[in-house]
Amino acid sequence: MKRIVVIGGGSAGTGAATIAVQRDRSLDVTLITEFEDIAYSPCGIPYVFGREIEKFDGLFLQPLEFYAEMGINLRTETVVDRVDIGRRVVHSTVGEEFPFDELIFCTGWEYEVPDLPNVGLDGIVYIKNIRRAMELDPKLDDVKRAVVWQAKPLGVELIEALPRRGIETHLVDSGGWLLSEFADADMMEPLQQHLVDELGVKLHFGTHLTGFDGRDGRLTTVRTSGGDIEADMAFLVAPTLPATGLAKSIGVETGSTGAIVVDNQMRTSVDGVFAAGACVETMHGLLNIPIHLIPGTYAYTQGRLAGANAAGASETYPPVYVPWGLGAAVQVGGALVSETLAQATGMKYVVGKATGITAARYHPAHEQMHVKLLADPDTRRVIGGQFTGGDGVKERADFLAFAIRKGTTLEELATMENVYSPPIGALGEPIAAAAKDALSRLVG
Amino acid sequence: MKRIVVIGGGSAGTGAATIAVQRDRSLDVTLITEFEDIAYSPCGIPYVFGREIEKFDGLFLQPLEFYAEMGINLRTETVVDRVDIGRRVVHSTVGEEFPFDELIFCTGWEYEVPDLPNVGLDGIVYIKNIRRAMELDPKLDDVKRAVVWQAKPLGVELIEALPRRGIETHLVDSGGWLLSEFADADMMEPLQQHLVDELGVKLHFGTHLTGFDGRDGRLTTVRTSGGDIEADMAFLVAPTLPATGLAKSIGVETGSTGAIVVDNQMRTSVDGVFAAGACVETMHGLLNIPIHLIPGTYAYTQGRLAGANAAGASETYPPVYVPWGLGAAVQVGGALVSETLAQATGMKYVVGKATGITAARYHPAHEQMHVKLLADPDTRRVIGGQFTGGDGVKERADFLAFAIRKGTTLEELATMENVYSPPIGALGEPIAAAAKDALSRLVG
Repeated sequence: MKRIVVIGGGSAGTGAATIAVQRDRSLDVTLITEFEDIAYSPCGIPYVFGREIEKFDGLFLQPLEFYAEMGINLRTETVVDRVDIGRRVVHSTVGEEFPFDELIFCTGWEYEVPDLPNVGLDGIVYIKNIRRAMELDPKLDDVKRAVVWQAKPLGVELIEALPRRGIETHLVDSGGWLLSEFADADMMEPLQQHLVDELGVKLHFGTHLTGFDGRDGRLTTVRTSGGDIEADMAFLVAPTLPATGLAKSIGVETGSTGAIVVDNQMRTSVDGVFAAGACVETMHGLLNIPIHLIPGTYAYTQGRLAGANAAGASETYPPVYVPWGLGAAVQVGGALVSETLAQATGMKYVVGKATGITAARYHPAHEQMHVKLLADPDTRRVIGGQFTGGDGVKERADFLAFAIRKGTTLEELATMENVYSPPIGALGEPIAAAAKDALSRLVG
Repeated sequence: MKRIVVIGGGSAGTGAATIAVQRDRSLDVTLITEFEDIAYSPCGIPYVFGREIEKFDGLFLQPLEFYAEMGINLRTETVVDRVDIGRRVVHSTVGEEFPFDELIFCTGWEYEVPDLPNVGLDGIVYIKNIRRAMELDPKLDDVKRAVVWQAKPLGVELIEALPRRGIETHLVDSGGWLLSEFADADMMEPLQQHLVDELGVKLHFGTHLTGFDGRDGRLTTVRTSGGDIEADMAFLVAPTLPATGLAKSIGVETGSTGAIVVDNQMRTSVDGVFAAGACVETMHGLLNIPIHLIPGTYAYTQGRLAGANAAGASETYPPVYVPWGLGAAVQVGGALVSETLAQATGMKYVVGKATGITAARYHPAHEQMHVKLLADPDTRRVIGGQFTGGDGVKERADFLAFAIRKGTTLEELATMENVYSPPIGALGEPIAAAAKDALSRLVG
């Protein structure tokens, strides 16, 4: 009987173990996690904080029994301290042994705690584990003022959520605008206005976090390059690192991102050892470099692929183009190369911009949709884009990532067809208008 | 000074005249229409009937003066009765002459009035002209019961609108379900349920219209193969015909659809004569046959192209893939080949189906999205699909039409990436799930 051991119970690990038993009931599949739970959505945490989602219960996909009944040997609160690759056995800290034929690392990622004065104070928190978030949630009622560090996606979700709990919310970020790693200032402006005007968020851009002060072990002050901010709580959306210690200990190769190198079947450099999710690096289709991806949708897909292949399949994973998106009242999204990135790396590009609408101009459902596209001026192939608007950003970001994958030119986007129906679609599609704008700049 | 005459003031004619003067101010551009207005959206009419849009005013894009000030010589309520192609002059019924160097037919479409007993009764109406619709609108307050003939898009919009005015609404259609010309029964089921359960619409499928009865010249009864329906008003969504009489009179060639044949620059068979919009036929990219298209979005795009080319450009129009969509609370849409059409024409196909969600399952914003895809079982290229759900149908239909144009395979859709953000995108995209389903059927 073939034995598969999965280390890690997040999206990747749950996906891997589930697909393995589904493909072949005769397999002996063990999932080991140091935490109390598997198969939940940490992405939902900020929305429970903001009471947009009522309670934490819904964030669990299934109760643990579900996976046990499915035939997975589930070992929660079990810490793996050693893998003996010679004997093909996983050891836990309490002396248990889990023998395997195939091993799958789904060890995920960790925060890199910043090396700053008094970073260990009570009230300085990280959002990742759902139990810790559940414990934190009632305490938010007593928080008057909070600081969120870094305008990454989770940071933006937090500064949208916390004001809904009556908390005066400050964002501290060394960049110049929201999501500056992959978005442009002009496209983030409407969301920033919404945060400031509607939710009263204080945005401290171009500002470095320098440390903390406290009293009786509790946070009282966040120190920044722009001055002190009195605060009861600080949410650190710190840099993330792939969790690769165990894998490295058995000689698994890691790459330029620090994450585990896998082939397109999720196989590591060690025979019979797979890896998937936020502990691996993934090839970017356009940039042609490995990147380190955190979103659960990648972890889940890669985990299922690793699980299927460990169970005998030979499925392959294509390079990625990474559509992104977030927000609610004001949504932002896109894919790939921003103007900021193109300028920073010296890429040649032409830009096209348009503001369109998402329903007929005379229909009350219509909302503005801002589109910005970037293309290679020689091949005219689209290399990136961003959207700011209301509903429809997610679908357009997915579309754009797929169009880039398919090598789409500006001419093709300029002539894309669109549904025209007053409540759901306007006469023209704003993506096509932005492509036409880019073409006119190439001619002009 | 080059003279361009445009006949017709709908989306195509307005687009043609506008772009021509915008491109070259020195041109003498005349737009002639038999109607009082140009540049309005007849598509909005059912939504004003249903009071989803407050009033008709918004349906006019710009006042007539706007176009005059732009430099267009605008001749409303002017009927062209003859074109002298030898002298290159257009004649009106009142003896005016409009000389031209380039002529653009944007004569649109007409209803084919069915040859049925008493079809001329008062109370039997057609929705097309906005002035007639404005006159009709207040009369709806006195209508107790109405029949809508044919479940084409306008018919579906009418049966969604009329119940909102307190009218008992009956649909009569010889097909078996809504939009049966291009959609499948299973995909229309949720919309039909919504119409019956929420709006109280009576659906008479498989039922032929056989005639009308009246009293004092007014409609009292709609006669059908399934029995009589007492009604104060009957909306005939009759078959449509391209309006080609004038064009034919000067020898312009028409094609298999009865509409004007144009090349990809919107040039007809007669030198210096262009045509655009609902009077021309358009090449279908996948089916590789000419089709006759009514939607304003095609008319507008083609009109602008014809206008630009008449003004000296050489722009080309690509074959079409025709995404479609409609609805509000329950939306339906898609592109190209339905299962019904594939079966009727003996096309080989594999089908894939999935029901997904449009936001995280634990987020209150999530709605179901049903997806059905058809692909060629040999090449695995996608040839069509349909969507039923809430918001996001329009964007997915646009995506699908573009993906088909780009020769996308099931494998590519199965591995498409998607934005995962709790309020706007679920862990998996239902399009990818439907593609996976189709692939599993090909293997199984």
